[in-house]
Amino acid sequence: LSVCILPGDGIGPEVTASAVRVLQQVCENAGTSLETASQPFGGAAIDTTGEPLPPATLEACKAADGVLLGAVGGPQYDAAARAGAPRPEQGLLALRQEMGLFANLRPSRLFPTLEGASPLREKIVRGTDILVVRELTGGLYFGDRREGDEEALDTLPYSRAEIERVAWTAFEAARGRRGKLCSVDKANVLASSRLWRKVIDDVSADFPEVEVKHVLVDAMAMHLVTRPSSFDVVVTENLFGDILSDELSAVVGSIGLAPSASLGAPDTPGVFEPIHGSAPDIAGTGKANPIGTILSAAMLLRFAAGMEDAAKSIEDAVETVLREGLRPFDLGGTAGTEDVTAAILKAL
Amino acid sequence: LSVCILPGDGIGPEVTASAVRVLQQVCENAGTSLETASQPFGGAAIDTTGEPLPPATLEACKAADGVLLGAVGGPQYDAAARAGAPRPEQGLLALRQEMGLFANLRPSRLFPTLEGASPLREKIVRGTDILVVRELTGGLYFGDRREGDEEALDTLPYSRAEIERVAWTAFEAARGRRGKLCSVDKANVLASSRLWRKVIDDVSADFPEVEVKHVLVDAMAMHLVTRPSSFDVVVTENLFGDILSDELSAVVGSIGLAPSASLGAPDTPGVFEPIHGSAPDIAGTGKANPIGTILSAAMLLRFAAGMEDAAKSIEDAVETVLREGLRPFDLGGTAGTEDVTAAILKAL
Ligand SMILES: CC(C)[C@H](C(=O)O)[C@@H](O)C(=O)O
Ligand SMILES: CC(C)[C@H](C(=O)O)[C@@H](O)C(=O)O
Repeated sequence: LSVCILPGDGIGPEVTASAVRVLQQVCENAGTSLETASQPFGGAAIDTTGEPLPPATLEACKAADGVLLGAVGGPQYDAAARAGAPRPEQGLLALRQEMGLFANLRPSRLFPTLEGASPLREKIVRGTDILVVRELTGGLYFGDRREGDEEALDTLPYSRAEIERVAWTAFEAARGRRGKLCSVDKANVLASSRLWRKVIDDVSADFPEVEVKHVLVDAMAMHLVTRPSSFDVVVTENLFGDILSDELSAVVGSIGLAPSASLGAPDTPGVFEPIHGSAPDIAGTGKANPIGTILSAAMLLRFAAGMEDAAKSIEDAVETVLREGLRPFDLGGTAGTEDVTAAILKAL
Repeated sequence: LSVCILPGDGIGPEVTASAVRVLQQVCENAGTSLETASQPFGGAAIDTTGEPLPPATLEACKAADGVLLGAVGGPQYDAAARAGAPRPEQGLLALRQEMGLFANLRPSRLFPTLEGASPLREKIVRGTDILVVRELTGGLYFGDRREGDEEALDTLPYSRAEIERVAWTAFEAARGRRGKLCSVDKANVLASSRLWRKVIDDVSADFPEVEVKHVLVDAMAMHLVTRPSSFDVVVTENLFGDILSDELSAVVGSIGLAPSASLGAPDTPGVFEPIHGSAPDIAGTGKANPIGTILSAAMLLRFAAGMEDAAKSIEDAVETVLREGLRPFDLGGTAGTEDVTAAILKAL
C-alpha cells in the first residue's frame, strides 16, 4: 500500500505523523507492506516552491494508492495573499479538481461515550449518525470569477453529469445504511438548485429502496440543530456541504474527531483528511488532537485499499480509548498528541 | 399610522390578524390613529390574479408607512411552479427588490424564561443576544440565471455600493449595542467575499468604536452552535444570512418567536415579518404561534413610526406572558393563536 502524505501547515505535520504510526501498525498486523512519502503542500509548499500544489506533489498523489492530508492555511499566508501571493487553499482546490475528487464523504456521529461533549442536550443529539455527501468539484468553488475593487462576481454552474455522479455516490451510501437520503438545495431561488432537485429525482428512479426528501438549505440549518438524529445520508452541492457539514460536526461535539474522504472515479486515489483546520495557535505545543486524522487513515484503508478489517480495528481502538476516558485538549481533557497516539497504538 | 397588511398563505392570515389586534390596542393606548388594509400577496395573489405581487399590492405597500407580512408559499404552489406557474416566493423577492429593502434585521435572543426551549445546553446558550444584519437585495438572489435541464447557472454579483450601505446599517447597529461586529464571508474562495471583506474594512474606518472580526461562513456555522453568546452584531451577504439566521433562530429555540425588519432608504416603508414560514400543515387549526408576527409589529412601530415606547410595550407584554408560563404549541404548550393573542392584549 503506497500512501502519499501531505502534512501541510500548522498542526498538519503533527497529526499526520500520528496517523502514519497508526497506519504502520495496522498494516504490520495485517501483513500488508506500507510505503509512505511526504510531499510539500499548502503554505509549506508556497514557502519552499512558491506554489501551494507543486507539480511533483500532484504527480506523487496521482501515483499513490491514497493520499493522507493534514491541513492547510495560516494567518501569514492570508496576509501575503492580500498582497498578491497564492493562497494555501488554492492548493487544496487544485488538488480536488486535478484529481477529480467530486464526492466528499463526511460521517458525523455522536460517539456514545461523548454525549457530554455535544453543545446540544443529550435527548436531542442522542443517536445522531449522519453521512454528509458533499459535491466537491463544482458550483461556486470552480465557477468563473471576476475580482474587482468596485464590483465582483462569482458563478455557480452545475451540469446534469456533475450532479448525477455525486447523486449515485449518495444513493449507494444510503442503500448501504438506513435507506434515507435528504437532498439539500435552495430550489425556491436558484436555477442550479432546481436542476439539482430534478437530477436527484431522476437518479432516485434507480434506487426505489431509498426514501428521498428535498429540504431547503435554510430549513436544514435549523433541522441539524433541532432534530439531527432524524437524518441518515445528506447530499448537497459544494458550498452548502461546506457550511452544513461544519455545523453538523459542531452539533455532535467532535470537530477534532471528524474524518473525511474525497473520492473520484474508481481508479483515482482518494484524499483523506480531518475536517478541522490547521489551528496555527496550537501548532508545535503538542496539544493537537490526532483522532480526526487517524480516523481519516481508517477511511483510507477502507476506500483506497479495501482493508475493511484494518479500518474497523482503528475505529474500534478510537472508541475504546474514548470509552476508557482518554480526553484530548479540545474535548476538555489533558491528553496531548503523543498520549492519544500511544493509547490508540496500545489499543490496536 | 397607515400599515399595509400582506397576510399571504398558510398561517399568514391568522398570525397577521393577531398582530393587527395588538397594533390596534397599542395605537389606541398611544392616541395614534391606525389605518390598516390587506392586500393579496404570494400564493393567495396567484390564486386570484395570477401573479404573486400584483401591481396594486406593490402600490399600496409603497404608499403605506410600513408593511406587515405573514408568510408565503405552500406545496400546491411548488407543484404548480414545476409546471411553469409563478412561485409565491417570487413575490417576496420582487417586493424586496422593488422597494429597495437592502437590509434585513433579524434579532435573535434567548428569552430568559425560555432557556429550556433551546436545543442547546443552558450553559452554552445563556446570554445569547445577536442581531443578524443580512444583505437582502443582492448576491445569488438577484444575479442573472440560466435555467436548464442539462446545465444551470446562477451568478453572485456584489458591488461596493451594495455592500457599503448594508455595512453602515450594521456598524450603526453595533455602535448602539455592545460595539462588536462579526462580518461573515467565504473570502478564501469567493471574489465577491474578498470585495465584501475589503468594503467592511473600509467602512470600519468610520466606526473606530466598533470592534470588527471577519469569520468564514463554515466556521461561523460551527460557532453559532458552540459559542453563540460571544457574538453581538453579525453582518453578511444574502444567502449566508438566510442560512445563518435560520440556524441561529433554532439555536435560541424560538423559530416561532423571531421577528424581522427589512429596511431600505430612509423614506422607504419597511417590511416586517416573522421569520417562520407559512406552515401549511397547521393552517386553519388555530395552533399557529402569532408571537413572531406580533414582535414584527413592534419592530414596525419602532422603525416605521418612531414609536419606541409602544414597541417596547409589546415586547414587554410578550415577555410577561411567557414569564407567566404561557406556552404556544411550538414551544411544547397548548396555547393556541387566540389564547396567545388574548394574553398579550391583556398584558398590554
Ligand atoms: C479551506 C477551504 C477552501 C475548504 C473548503 O471550503 O472547501 C475547507 O473549508 C473544507 O471544507 O475543506
Ligand atoms: C422564501 C425565501 C425565498 C426566503 C429567502 O430565502 O430569502 C426566506 O427563506 C427568507 O429568509 O425570508
